[in-house]
Amino acid sequence: MKILFIGDIVGKPGREMIKENIEILKTKFQPDVTIVNGENAAHGKGITQKIYKNLLEWGVDVITLGNHTWDKKEVFEFIDEADHMVRPANFPPDTPGKGMLFHEVKGRKLAVINLQGRTFLPPLDDPFRKAETLIEEAQKKTPYIFIDFHAEATSEKQAMGWFVDGRVSAMVGTHTHVQTSDERILPKGTAYITDVGMTGPYDSVLGVETGAVIRKFLTGMPVRFEIPEQGRTILSAVFIHINETSGLADHIQRILINDDHPFFQ
Amino acid sequence: MKILFIGDIVGKPGREMIKENIEILKTKFQPDVTIVNGENAAHGKGITQKIYKNLLEWGVDVITLGNHTWDKKEVFEFIDEADHMVRPANFPPDTPGKGMLFHEVKGRKLAVINLQGRTFLPPLDDPFRKAETLIEEAQKKTPYIFIDFHAEATSEKQAMGWFVDGRVSAMVGTHTHVQTSDERILPKGTAYITDVGMTGPYDSVLGVETGAVIRKFLTGMPVRFEIPEQGRTILSAVFIHINETSGLADHIQRILINDDHPFFQ
Amino acid sequence: MKILFIGDIVGKPGREMIKENIEILKTKFQPDVTIVNGENAAHGKGITQKIYKNLLEWGVDVITLGNHTWDKKEVFEFIDEADHMVRPANFPPDTPGKGMLFHEVKGRKLAVINLQGRTFLPPLDDPFRKAETLIEEAQKKTPYIFIDFHAEATSEKQAMGWFVDGRVSAMVGTHTHVQTSDERILPKGTAYITDVGMTGPYDSVLGVETGAVIRKFLTGMPVRFEIPEQGRTILSAVFIHINETSGLADHIQRILINDDHPFFQ
Amino acid sequence: MKILFIGDIVGKPGREMIKENIEILKTKFQPDVTIVNGENAAHGKGITQKIYKNLLEWGVDVITLGNHTWDKKEVFEFIDEADHMVRPANFPPDTPGKGMLFHEVKGRKLAVINLQGRTFLPPLDDPFRKAETLIEEAQKKTPYIFIDFHAEATSEKQAMGWFVDGRVSAMVGTHTHVQTSDERILPKGTAYITDVGMTGPYDSVLGVETGAVIRKFLTGMPVRFEIPEQGRTILSAVFIHINETSGLADHIQRILINDDHPFFQ
Ligand SMILES: [Fe+2]
Ligand SMILES: [Fe+2]
Ligand SMILES: [Fe+2]
Ligand SMILES: [Fe+2]
Ligand SMILES: [Fe+2]
Ligand SMILES: [Fe+2]
Ligand SMILES: [Fe+2]
Ligand SMILES: [Fe+2]
Repeated sequence: MKILFIGDIVGKPGREMIKENIEILKTKFQPDVTIVNGENAAHGKGITQKIYKNLLEWGVDVITLGNHTWDKKEVFEFIDEADHMVRPANFPPDTPGKGMLFHEVKGRKLAVINLQGRTFLPPLDDPFRKAETLIEEAQKKTPYIFIDFHAEATSEKQAMGWFVDGRVSAMVGTHTHVQTSDERILPKGTAYITDVGMTGPYDSVLGVETGAVIRKFLTGMPVRFEIPEQGRTILSAVFIHINETSGLADHIQRILINDDHPFFQ
Repeated sequence: MKILFIGDIVGKPGREMIKENIEILKTKFQPDVTIVNGENAAHGKGITQKIYKNLLEWGVDVITLGNHTWDKKEVFEFIDEADHMVRPANFPPDTPGKGMLFHEVKGRKLAVINLQGRTFLPPLDDPFRKAETLIEEAQKKTPYIFIDFHAEATSEKQAMGWFVDGRVSAMVGTHTHVQTSDERILPKGTAYITDVGMTGPYDSVLGVETGAVIRKFLTGMPVRFEIPEQGRTILSAVFIHINETSGLADHIQRILINDDHPFFQ
Repeated sequence: MKILFIGDIVGKPGREMIKENIEILKTKFQPDVTIVNGENAAHGKGITQKIYKNLLEWGVDVITLGNHTWDKKEVFEFIDEADHMVRPANFPPDTPGKGMLFHEVKGRKLAVINLQGRTFLPPLDDPFRKAETLIEEAQKKTPYIFIDFHAEATSEKQAMGWFVDGRVSAMVGTHTHVQTSDERILPKGTAYITDVGMTGPYDSVLGVETGAVIRKFLTGMPVRFEIPEQGRTILSAVFIHINETSGLADHIQRILINDDHPFFQ
Repeated sequence: MKILFIGDIVGKPGREMIKENIEILKTKFQPDVTIVNGENAAHGKGITQKIYKNLLEWGVDVITLGNHTWDKKEVFEFIDEADHMVRPANFPPDTPGKGMLFHEVKGRKLAVINLQGRTFLPPLDDPFRKAETLIEEAQKKTPYIFIDFHAEATSEKQAMGWFVDGRVSAMVGTHTHVQTSDERILPKGTAYITDVGMTGPYDSVLGVETGAVIRKFLTGMPVRFEIPEQGRTILSAVFIHINETSGLADHIQRILINDDHPFFQ
């Protein structure tokens, strides 16, 4: 099974980057499943039903989220019916939405799990124990398990990677919006990367207009964080090849499309 | 001017990785200056005088530090005389050691500045204003200025990059111990990378034995963080080429040496 | 010199509590100066020019602020002309407003300093060094110096108390919205209390409607924090008597007005 | 049922304060149960078996803990057998020790629950949901339920108070080491105080020698936190009277013994 995962889509520039490149990427990599992190898809903050539908129309199969899940109020209106979207599974019990889904592809199931870290982020249930519970549940149905671990600290992400190694097909990190170059197959067979990186404005601070962020750091005063609608863009992704028999990973490859790292087809 | 910068050296495995590879790297890249981050060089915590001297003997020119600067008590005994070592310049006034030094190479001077971030890290003076002050001071002497910005948050590091763009030759990030793949020349000419990554044990969590870190996340109880002395290792670095005339960067290249990313000479 | 200081005024209930009680308190305590913390005076978030003027009309002499200083945008329009208001002095250089003012009373000057802590709060310049600088500046003009140290951690507040002991007339803490019972004269003569507490809705969480705060803790989802306009209220204050000769404190007394701690005149 | 609760005992001065005053306090208040927070009893960090036994010998019935539970390694050797001690109940599953116990007094049972907050403290399971579960469990056995909520943020503590109001006899806060003056009976009958305060050195920062703490704030460098063995001391406590029929509180009273707040018998 081949998986294409695209990191945090930021605003309109991020969505357009998806729209323009998804066909090219699909042609090149021939993924069975395409997953994107959509927590910043709506002007950097959350997701709307329209964006959810657009992403699916453009060819996305599953959308993962993170700490920005609730930023757009209308998410409460459609999240329970959004069969192709997961929010962090270790949100409190009774939270709207779901933390794991099974995507059917050519008669096989891929479990897609979303989890959120706790280091430098708001309090949540333990993502490690939640991972364990969900992996056991998923394994009853399928050997193909994919985790998007949305977390800040490199230590928590690497620890999670080693914790699930050999039990899931792949664990990729999101949230820092900067791709790491540590993609690898861990010793027991799980594909791993600390952070996939973001998709959106390239000449920015994590997708946000640079001047405002610098002013925030310099003054501590309120600033308006805008997503620059013009200018160069970046797309960050990984392509993972899962062994059909074992459900473990054979290969993980970083994908980066920007002016400094041109992507040749 | 050509600069080789090697990221956070963790413990004995990190030091041996330096010893074994520095000649190879120097032969290949022909750097004029070799800088390393040494804040974790002594068993993961701080630096000793012996290690300081060894690093210089092996061919290192300048050592930068970070939040682990004071972990070994003996650092207080030699830091004021350590002419080739900088600690974060935005530590409080009257702190032992210095935050900027000028390294002479072939009749030219390279200003090396160490700064530490404040997001998710202990309180310090503003690294942005400190950068500004030190850049102005350095520019009186030389157009070649190198900053190691030791920080956790990707936002703070990218903001610093844009803040100093066009005013320094290069700003590289350290501290997260995971190399990022976003190396680039910013529009006004400063070489930039969010994090260079670490040098030490490869099958680890940021250099520390994985089992202990997972136990810490699972139990919250005290655990002993050991640096695994056996096993595979990684070296993370960047090579930067600075234009002799402008003092701005022509080129930045990531270097990663580990089993999954073999380094061919 | 006698000082009445009233803690964080929260919203309309807090303002009305001031309006209704200030005369009674002034009649009883005969303060020479009345200072209030107004960072939450406008519906819990910041302060407006109208509220600023009202407070002065009702008999307040000086207003201190804190981390909510910038919550109302209009503050930028009047803060530089607001001669009777201070915001934390360790905000970055070039910040609008001022961190120290001199209030004239019967031919004597009272220096009023506002500082903000850094523990569990956003990065700022060192409040300890800033205190030192401002105290030296103030001492050139007057022996009467009052500090409102707006901070979260009890450790940082007590440390500041001991740091300025004998150098200022009084240091009172604000920000936690809960009055502490540790008012005292420190050994070298400075009046001290860790937190004065808040003025506003009594059956609330720090002034905010309880249901919303509990929901926030339980769900992590966005909630609207309302200041209950009806219901019982509380006023928290301290009265400090400063020795005319030494400028040090002779006496500090807690004031608490609520249904469980009736205040008898 | 009458309960005497004494706040965080810090080091030897704190233990001696208990030893010297427990008889006097018992004579005056005639408590049915005496509970102390012992997380700092061993030189400020954790608790030993010897101290545990001493406290029981001196007349303490139950000991609660907090974030310093594991500071002394020997705690692991006796915590599972320590029938009169609770550690935070929302520590991870499988943690040694217990989070609730039932103390028998004159044929009645008092459930004693220890919980720890998450704001400004390390990640843990949700203390609100844990409270709910334990309250339901306790209510099957007894109407007398006491909670020590060990937490930093005043908001989290007040929110917990309102959350359990009417369901437990009393919820007292610990951890900040500074007594608050907001003791009250909440509208549905639960006795409440945000923080009981500490028991130990009076001329200190939360029990620690002041010079070291100030140096830490000024320099950020490692300092040795000592508990001053000489000098004045403080004891902080509350006395609570629970209605025999309803299990709700009739009365809560602060107790403070120090030079500035003399305690008259
Ligand atoms: Fe994101
Ligand atoms: Fe995120
Ligand atoms: Fe490091
Ligand atoms: Fe570091
Ligand atoms: Fe406030
Ligand atoms: Fe505040
Ligand atoms: Fe404590
Ligand atoms: Fe504590």
